[in-house]
Amino acid sequence: MSDCLFCRIAAGELPAEVIATSERAIAFMDINPATRGHALVIPRAHATDVGDIGEEDLAACAALAARVAAVARKDLGAAGVNILNSSGPAAWQTVFHFHLHVIPRYEGDPLRLPWTPAPGDPSEIAAAGESYRRAASSVSGALPPSPPGVE
Amino acid sequence: MSDCLFCRIAAGELPAEVIATSERAIAFMDINPATRGHALVIPRAHATDVGDIGEEDLAACAALAARVAAVARKDLGAAGVNILNSSGPAAWQTVFHFHLHVIPRYEGDPLRLPWTPAPGDPSEIAAAGESYRRAASSVSGALPPSPPGVE
Repeated sequence: MSDCLFCRIAAGELPAEVIATSERAIAFMDINPATRGHALVIPRAHATDVGDIGEEDLAACAALAARVAAVARKDLGAAGVNILNSSGPAAWQTVFHFHLHVIPRYEGDPLRLPWTPAPGDPSEIAAAGESYRRAASSVSGALPPSPPGVE
Repeated sequence: MSDCLFCRIAAGELPAEVIATSERAIAFMDINPATRGHALVIPRAHATDVGDIGEEDLAACAALAARVAAVARKDLGAAGVNILNSSGPAAWQTVFHFHLHVIPRYEGDPLRLPWTPAPGDPSEIAAAGESYRRAASSVSGALPPSPPGVE
């Protein structure tokens, strides 16, 4: 038996409030919700984070998150939606199976943007941009293929 | 000429620090960076937010964001990455052309999670789950097809 919490949910070995599924992905309620209707979308196949998820699984998770977001706005009364992926402990990840948070947003809810938008130093931005461009060609094929579809 | 800021960047009518491109998506530096290397990924074709982006464009944006995230970790020294979509003014959206924030995270950086994780009321979670399930069948086909590829 896997000791990955979300693999066990995907396998039906642990209970979860599942709300929608697709061939490659599952959506279920977060038990520590930021707002009413906070859901998680995971690939059925294990991946740690955005660094090792396969391209098809990533696309499937994004598509299912978009479906969940549409329902949150249409049927839960959300005024907006955030979709958030946290990859790595330094980015707040606590369960190491790739997941997208789908967080319905309501007028006056208590969430605050995690940073204060302000113009950056143009030369620092240009330098970071140059670092990306130098490296980009080496990672064009960085996304691994997804494992065969599971159902 | 479009008055959408990001359509104008996509068309090359406004300058931007472009770092990577694909057939359907473009990545460029955010001029108001949360952290060093903060980038945005947009579809070339206009969509307002996650509610109207086509499925192929959404997949292309996610794939390009994953490439950018990989470079941030490998070449910019990021310890982790957040990928964030804000859909709707209530969710912090300020430019109404779909975009994914790719935010490199560093040990000790000042960003804080926008909510405080705490167990929710199980009956409220179950009720929200039931609302999603009731509505889900009506939105299975909610994602529109993307417009034809542009390049």
